[in-house]
Amino acid sequence: MSRFSLNQATIKYADLETAVRVTADAGIESIGLWREPVAAAGLEHSARVVRDAGLRVSSLCRAGFFTMPEGPARRAAVDDNRRAIEETAALGAPTLVLVAGGLPEGSRDLVGARARVGEALAELEHDALAAGVQLAIEALHPMYVTDRAVVSTLGQALDLAAPFDARAVGVVVDTFHIFWDPDVLGQIARAGVEGRIASYQVCDWNMPIAADPLLSRGYPGDGLIDFASLTRAVVDAGYDGDIECEIFNQEIWDAEPALVAARARAAYENLVEPHL
Amino acid sequence: MSRFSLNQATIKYADLETAVRVTADAGIESIGLWREPVAAAGLEHSARVVRDAGLRVSSLCRAGFFTMPEGPARRAAVDDNRRAIEETAALGAPTLVLVAGGLPEGSRDLVGARARVGEALAELEHDALAAGVQLAIEALHPMYVTDRAVVSTLGQALDLAAPFDARAVGVVVDTFHIFWDPDVLGQIARAGVEGRIASYQVCDWNMPIAADPLLSRGYPGDGLIDFASLTRAVVDAGYDGDIECEIFNQEIWDAEPALVAARARAAYENLVEPHL
Repeated sequence: MSRFSLNQATIKYADLETAVRVTADAGIESIGLWREPVAAAGLEHSARVVRDAGLRVSSLCRAGFFTMPEGPARRAAVDDNRRAIEETAALGAPTLVLVAGGLPEGSRDLVGARARVGEALAELEHDALAAGVQLAIEALHPMYVTDRAVVSTLGQALDLAAPFDARAVGVVVDTFHIFWDPDVLGQIARAGVEGRIASYQVCDWNMPIAADPLLSRGYPGDGLIDFASLTRAVVDAGYDGDIECEIFNQEIWDAEPALVAARARAAYENLVEPHL
Repeated sequence: MSRFSLNQATIKYADLETAVRVTADAGIESIGLWREPVAAAGLEHSARVVRDAGLRVSSLCRAGFFTMPEGPARRAAVDDNRRAIEETAALGAPTLVLVAGGLPEGSRDLVGARARVGEALAELEHDALAAGVQLAIEALHPMYVTDRAVVSTLGQALDLAAPFDARAVGVVVDTFHIFWDPDVLGQIARAGVEGRIASYQVCDWNMPIAADPLLSRGYPGDGLIDFASLTRAVVDAGYDGDIECEIFNQEIWDAEPALVAARARAAYENLVEPHL
């Protein structure tokens, strides 16, 4: 069995059925899905297509975006997270990835926004437990702190998760977002001790940073991340689930999905798998 | 007395004499100098020009860039840092800003590069003490970790400084680079307790990030940083030195230096000074 999973965002322009076919045809056994293409294909239909192809679903991306203060927008966000938990369960995925969201419009209050992430998790813990879904807080690189995720380090994600049942709230270990952290190896070990590694995602840090900094990711090996030390730390922390390759990169998105799937798998087999 | 200091990089295209004149004409009492324009004008001449204008020199930027392994390039880097210490003393500045440097060419070993920063500081401690100059390790935003500075957080800078006399090795608190850190207020307090705040630099985090991410800084007020909480933390930590405004921004560099000096001072007086 291979633990490699192709995250659907890596072949962003493929619809659900194409993504599943490309993944299975490449001999990949697992796929990470995104809510938008699943919704476009229909939730039940998507679950059936994946099942018929014999694939595991490693995670569903993504919910979260709940840093705004109390009010109708916040209620809508919490409701949307509840729907996402149900979708995750319906797809048979163990994990729902959460991106916290950035500063609310006009705000400079990171401390307040971060506190509201914890408050949202408190509202969702019971739903996650009931559905058998582990929420996975994803720390994003600090260059996205104001517009995308006020959760910036693995240690901070673990602090936010700490009050909750580990079956309900875990964390994502994403190489791109956390490799720079002087404390990354210690925090990966801590995540293992606390039973909270819900997902391990691999992609590389390409330099120079792309003009759209969201798209500066690369295949493992194309950038400057040391996958050996990070992968060994994740293994030593006891994580034994699927390992997703999730790449946002315009050139990769513009390439043939079957070639991208093959290339991602080869990069994983060269740079990550030897350290398992 | 105003604690405001105009860092020369904010009016990058002005030569040393122009920068000094613009600063003094704006009623600013202090200036942060850079080695290249000082060298172009001559060290002794520069010191005289600044003295004749009645300005303090808050810091000299910059040395560092010593992450490479042992060999001639590393020896040259250490020698260059020693020269920079002498230049700082000759200019009457209390502080030499150090930018650590990124990964050596072809390396993905952040742990090794970070260790070599500590080794370089050990070589320089005595020179700094002898010259009466405090080296100031600057943590740079994690988006610069591979190409510019493997020191990414204030806590990491303090850990690197810890083995050395605080009169020889301190840290820079630069809002742009550290505002995102969930632990920033705690680490500023720690820096105060340890007597290591050598410099407080203010500029804002503009969004979206500029296509050249080095140039994404703005006047205080133009971006998303909360200067109130950071400035109060620096004050509470006991820092009572000059406060530099250092902005890398193409539009600001293209503007008239006198206007830039006035605008930077006004931004400081509106956003920073009320919290002193």
